[in-house]
Amino acid sequence: MSNFQLLLLAGTHGNEINAPWLLKEWKKEPQLINTNDLKITPVIANPAALNTCKRYIDRDLNRSFHKDLFALENFEDYEIHRAIELLDLYGPEGSSPCQVAIDLHSTTSSMGGSLVVYGQRPADLAIASLVQARLGLPIYLHEGDDSQQGFLVESWPCGFVIEIGPVAQGLLDPQIILQTRVIVQILLEEIKKFMSGLAFFPEQLVVHRHLRNLDFPRDRNGEIEAYVHSSLIGEEWRPLKNGAPIFTKFNGDVVRFSGHDFPIPVFINEAAYMEKHIAMSLTKREVWPFSSDWRNALEQFKDI
Amino acid sequence: MSNFQLLLLAGTHGNEINAPWLLKEWKKEPQLINTNDLKITPVIANPAALNTCKRYIDRDLNRSFHKDLFALENFEDYEIHRAIELLDLYGPEGSSPCQVAIDLHSTTSSMGGSLVVYGQRPADLAIASLVQARLGLPIYLHEGDDSQQGFLVESWPCGFVIEIGPVAQGLLDPQIILQTRVIVQILLEEIKKFMSGLAFFPEQLVVHRHLRNLDFPRDRNGEIEAYVHSSLIGEEWRPLKNGAPIFTKFNGDVVRFSGHDFPIPVFINEAAYMEKHIAMSLTKREVWPFSSDWRNALEQFKDI
Repeated sequence: MSNFQLLLLAGTHGNEINAPWLLKEWKKEPQLINTNDLKITPVIANPAALNTCKRYIDRDLNRSFHKDLFALENFEDYEIHRAIELLDLYGPEGSSPCQVAIDLHSTTSSMGGSLVVYGQRPADLAIASLVQARLGLPIYLHEGDDSQQGFLVESWPCGFVIEIGPVAQGLLDPQIILQTRVIVQILLEEIKKFMSGLAFFPEQLVVHRHLRNLDFPRDRNGEIEAYVHSSLIGEEWRPLKNGAPIFTKFNGDVVRFSGHDFPIPVFINEAAYMEKHIAMSLTKREVWPFSSDWRNALEQFKDI
Repeated sequence: MSNFQLLLLAGTHGNEINAPWLLKEWKKEPQLINTNDLKITPVIANPAALNTCKRYIDRDLNRSFHKDLFALENFEDYEIHRAIELLDLYGPEGSSPCQVAIDLHSTTSSMGGSLVVYGQRPADLAIASLVQARLGLPIYLHEGDDSQQGFLVESWPCGFVIEIGPVAQGLLDPQIILQTRVIVQILLEEIKKFMSGLAFFPEQLVVHRHLRNLDFPRDRNGEIEAYVHSSLIGEEWRPLKNGAPIFTKFNGDVVRFSGHDFPIPVFINEAAYMEKHIAMSLTKREVWPFSSDWRNALEQFKDI
């Protein structure tokens, strides 16, 4: 594990300020988070956006890690430049290569503490299993959503998002800071244990697999004509029954969920997703037996 | 009351989207809020900022109603132009003059429903008394803060802010929409009753008078080094005791309140105030006997 290096990113969205604050304070007092002797590189992913407390300058950095974008002959978007810069510095082939990228986010949605995993990469699932076994937190498996591509962590061999809410954008919140700190601490402990041959993998992994997004009801002009029903606020991770109220119109009309598959909503009322036409995402809870392939995939990082 | 006209503003801050949504829907279905036959002019105050879901384009519109700004020979700020435009249209000397301006806001702070009154204008206090008597909501009396000038409603003969929280910026929230709607409805009812000679004024008005602002603790570089203590979140409108925890540092150190005047905090953790170096404002609760001067000041609008 001599050259193993973990990239710890915060401020990928510049208005999610709790994790960046944690990273800055940690740099001042490094003893306050135990790195377990791992080599950690803490990086503010989008410093320009953070300085102005905006999600992004020109485009969402966390949708900008895409070969098609890098191949454009001329691009002026700050975030595309920054994506290339981060890869040049810390990418798997970068000057200071990192093998695992952990991207710290917050959300206005009442997600609690959760992991967002993209696709089904075995090494991601191995680490996610270790963290879930310790903290019991839910895992949102994001895959197969053609409307959303180019997530940061996908450009590293292994990595995922730590997503914590609810907190308003641009707000320091004691609960969010504490939760971020605890999850990062446990994550580092578990990786260290694995590297030392001491990790204890669970027998199964519970994932919430992305099914589809639900937009707000809109009028003929495309304007939102209903808001999330009050009974659904804070109901992430609980199955939606057929007929459950999901939106309310101005005139009091209730829009009800129609379906018999008991999907589980996540990211209900994430403010930044309004522009993406997502009022919530629907998932399916699946229990997967732990696979030795996952552990094996993680083994490669021991020999770096 | 034939020419009496009330200006109802929303979206003065473009990322406070609940009241603008309410106004847009109301325009589509006017019967759903009873205007009590009052002439109401609903206006989106900062449409450019609302379209991009930002607080403002160039500068805070709600600090831009200031003669010193208008007197500048050259100004390019969108909000100064818009302030002048709003006054030309709906100001007391405007083409469609309004006598009362009610400005609908939301906050990330747990203020509940409240009124923000600037200075001690008798007509403002008269209407505030009527609304408080009906709904019991607290009133934040903002005055004598030299660092903050140029509030919108101060450019009208009468008016105040309706401030409701907590809600994240850029988020439609059922509770906030409902509260805004109820307060606006009651306000219109009370003004109508007054115009008809049927208003019942209370014997007293309870105000929370601005004392001073508290900034976050900062390090030598001016960076925030502590966040609001978890025990203070949601504690608006309750007195601070000497020694009460108010901030937490990364290393766990607690910053405690020092003072024996039991000030009452408001706007704890309003995200937009971070740039104004305000972690919270401190107020003093005062009970004022109702003054007939207030009612008399309101009488002038009957003869418009």
